[in-house]
Amino acid sequence: MPTTVPAETTTIVLDALSFNDAGLIPAIAQQHDSGEVLMMAWMNRDAVRETLETGRVCYFSRSKGRLWRKGEQSGQIQNLIELRWDCDADTLLLMVDQKGVACHTGRRNCFFNAVREGKPSVIADVAVSPDILYGGGPE
Amino acid sequence: MPTTVPAETTTIVLDALSFNDAGLIPAIAQQHDSGEVLMMAWMNRDAVRETLETGRVCYFSRSKGRLWRKGEQSGQIQNLIELRWDCDADTLLLMVDQKGVACHTGRRNCFFNAVREGKPSVIADVAVSPDILYGGGPE
Repeated sequence: MPTTVPAETTTIVLDALSFNDAGLIPAIAQQHDSGEVLMMAWMNRDAVRETLETGRVCYFSRSKGRLWRKGEQSGQIQNLIELRWDCDADTLLLMVDQKGVACHTGRRNCFFNAVREGKPSVIADVAVSPDILYGGGPE
Repeated sequence: MPTTVPAETTTIVLDALSFNDAGLIPAIAQQHDSGEVLMMAWMNRDAVRETLETGRVCYFSRSKGRLWRKGEQSGQIQNLIELRWDCDADTLLLMVDQKGVACHTGRRNCFFNAVREGKPSVIADVAVSPDILYGGGPE
């Protein structure tokens, strides 16, 4: 079950957070049980509010310039387990339950590039074809 | 042992990464064995280069306007185990071995604020007094 919180708590959290000059805050999504870091994206106040009140993770897409409900096109949604924020209140850590894959490339997480044995390497395979996820254009 | 890489690999990685208009890229630090997300900070090109070539994590401090070798004052250093980056090449994930505590408040990680049972809550205790870490002023 996704976690939802009362509107008055959301207001307290929003007042505590520090958004940047563009009104955004970075949000790291971590799979709550395995600890896998899935992705990093951005939220504005409305995205934080919607995420807390619906229990479904909603980001702000800088490329689209609008709220982006994770999985709205691909079906690969994120349910919120717990929202955390850091000492400076300028970064969020979302403990989530990711359905399927988090990355638009069809990989489980977005961090599939690494330096291994001294060389840039791709360290994760595609689990689901983007064609199946989107049937055309990325999310 | 920290991981270091050849200078030519560093150049390839730097060319692959996408820095923002301020010349910075966000870097998430994750404890390599436990999966704990420790902190998020920023790097510029010089910080990425130094981190890869020395195996000790170096950030760019936006408040100080200079390179910030994690632990330079507190002794709570981060050794690099593996550097990863995401599908858009605009976020880094650093797999690290954190000595002691990552947070300037003396907590193991910076994400000690959460919404629990519908209320904002502090979910981690101070492990080491900041007075012991710094003997005055934060890092």
